Amino acid sequence: MNQNNGRVYNFSAGPSMLPLEVMEDVARELTNYKGCGQSVMEMSHRSKEFGAILEETEKSLRTLMNIPENYKVLFLQGGGTLQFSMVPINLLRKSKKADYIVTGTWAKKAAAEAKKFGDIKIVASSADTTFSYIPKVNKEDFREDADYVHITFNNTIYGTHYGYIPETGDIPLVADMSSCILSEEIDVTKFGLIYAGAQKNIAPAGVTIVIIREDLLGFAPEEAPTYLDYKVHADNDSMYNTPPCFTIYVAGEVFKHILKNGGVAPLNKIDIEKAGKLYKYIDESKLYSCPVQEDSRSLMNVVFVTGDADLDKKFIAEAKTIGLVNLAGHRSIGGMRASIYNAMPMEGVEKLIEFMKKFEAENAK
Amino acid sequence: MNQNNGRVYNFSAGPSMLPLEVMEDVARELTNYKGCGQSVMEMSHRSKEFGAILEETEKSLRTLMNIPENYKVLFLQGGGTLQFSMVPINLLRKSKKADYIVTGTWAKKAAAEAKKFGDIKIVASSADTTFSYIPKVNKEDFREDADYVHITFNNTIYGTHYGYIPETGDIPLVADMSSCILSEEIDVTKFGLIYAGAQKNIAPAGVTIVIIREDLLGFAPEEAPTYLDYKVHADNDSMYNTPPCFTIYVAGEVFKHILKNGGVAPLNKIDIEKAGKLYKYIDESKLYSCPVQEDSRSLMNVVFVTGDADLDKKFIAEAKTIGLVNLAGHRSIGGMRASIYNAMPMEGVEKLIEFMKKFEAENAK
Repeated sequence: MNQNNGRVYNFSAGPSMLPLEVMEDVARELTNYKGCGQSVMEMSHRSKEFGAILEETEKSLRTLMNIPENYKVLFLQGGGTLQFSMVPINLLRKSKKADYIVTGTWAKKAAAEAKKFGDIKIVASSADTTFSYIPKVNKEDFREDADYVHITFNNTIYGTHYGYIPETGDIPLVADMSSCILSEEIDVTKFGLIYAGAQKNIAPAGVTIVIIREDLLGFAPEEAPTYLDYKVHADNDSMYNTPPCFTIYVAGEVFKHILKNGGVAPLNKIDIEKAGKLYKYIDESKLYSCPVQEDSRSLMNVVFVTGDADLDKKFIAEAKTIGLVNLAGHRSIGGMRASIYNAMPMEGVEKLIEFMKKFEAENAK
Repeated sequence: MNQNNGRVYNFSAGPSMLPLEVMEDVARELTNYKGCGQSVMEMSHRSKEFGAILEETEKSLRTLMNIPENYKVLFLQGGGTLQFSMVPINLLRKSKKADYIVTGTWAKKAAAEAKKFGDIKIVASSADTTFSYIPKVNKEDFREDADYVHITFNNTIYGTHYGYIPETGDIPLVADMSSCILSEEIDVTKFGLIYAGAQKNIAPAGVTIVIIREDLLGFAPEEAPTYLDYKVHADNDSMYNTPPCFTIYVAGEVFKHILKNGGVAPLNKIDIEKAGKLYKYIDESKLYSCPVQEDSRSLMNVVFVTGDADLDKKFIAEAKTIGLVNLAGHRSIGGMRASIYNAMPMEGVEKLIEFMKKFEAENAK
């Protein structure tokens, strides 16, 4: 069944594949990290050893993303979901107005949560076509006094991705980059805040990266839960309370692995090649089609359908038998989805295309 | 330097030692869990495999703690710190009054945070003697209309532990058991809610266990951040958003390890023996003393001093050279603290006492 030294190709939307070499290193030093006599799982977060891990992890991410000095990097818990609350609690600081672009389930959830805390306007949405594209917005589309604009940069469920960074003028742009972080070079200075759950391109689930411009710190109301105040975490270098140390360590190992291989640019090149091959085959195929508008397609989540729900099910089941797993689309929309994050090897995509061809030949209409 | 197959005895207050056998098993299946071709770090939280892990983990904890059917078990993020907010947000449901017993730094923080959300009364405190004992409280000490009573069952920093469960009548009792969970048999029915960060007796940092009586669910105000509503997590079996899957898996492995060894009762017997040996030696010693009142001493955190800050420093430094690490008291109080959680082997305590004797002989006053 398995084709890859006993390992499957896991197309899960997240948690998802991690680089095998990184996991092998982690396994090797699991009970004794660098000869210190302890596992990273057991280490006091106040220890010299963990301090060095946290520092190096942050430094690696700063190098990978070219994060300027005037941005803080935080390692938090609670996933994107907690960010849906933390962003409005901290950033609705003057007019209490924020503008959201709704491009899928998570964007909708983010906006709905924000409505608990302020005056939220949906300035654009692609709900009209089941989120098959990213709307084009201009500076004029935003309310002049909005405290921030929120976008979901990559939409895991619908397989869409912003092909551009919306121009917001002086209004801070906030982006959920959970499912595309480190897959492409990003100009961090275009954003006021970037957040990303780790469980796609970074680490196991359990840590959330927040990159925030320093002038946006310090606006959480006094009555907000302390854990939800970015400034508390920034002032304490993500050590206000015990951080998820082991997960941060794995993230750091992944960052070092990417650095060793030349950083984000070469990864992006491979990601473009991987996704390109898959989209090309789908577009040429008579059986499969991709519902996503070409200029809005994600490099990370490739959504496709046969147009026949029973055939989709058969596809997913047969793929699984040869070690191509988790190809089902999100339970809310069905069809197929191949999530091909950074750690999905080219071979995985090639095996998938090979299988798709075979399946198409066997199930020609 | 290391005495234990290259591993040190780690007396850290948390994160802290985990059973070596468990970590060895985790390392062995790190890149391929039970032949499924994936690491638990990579698994979709919606997969059959992770579903089975989560279910078994909860079941094991229910068995270990004899948790009744009318209690929900939740696996959350954010540590005790987020619980300091979630408890009042969810449980201040009628009078908006709650009574806190303050027995140390964490209890004080819990009460301070709760004040953001309601009328909080400190009904008893041991601050008068630097938290060297657990106050005795009776039902009459609590406000009749209090929505709950909060206690910190074991005080990691000051080395104290409740020798009794306060009688609160119909008022739900809430206990932070972060540093003593699974070290003793507890009658869960005496509590409305128990919470515990995992990083002492359970798993790496990054998951928080909440055990909550079902009738206490559903009272979070509508405007509360969704992640902070216990009911949302209970209704979704801790899968409202992506849980910290890998950390939950390690917790489950620790639970199975404890079950295999007979459950909590035999562990408690060993814990009593370990702490007993250490306290006995300290009480008999001419150099060391324990500032904690005898009936309030913790089995998990043994605090002691020489009475000479420089000598304390020398002790900590010398102990480290022979692989007895993290013996410094909390940075807020100094002195020494030996945290001897479930995973600290008897040999670790014996080595510590041996070293203490040698140090005493060499540094007799």
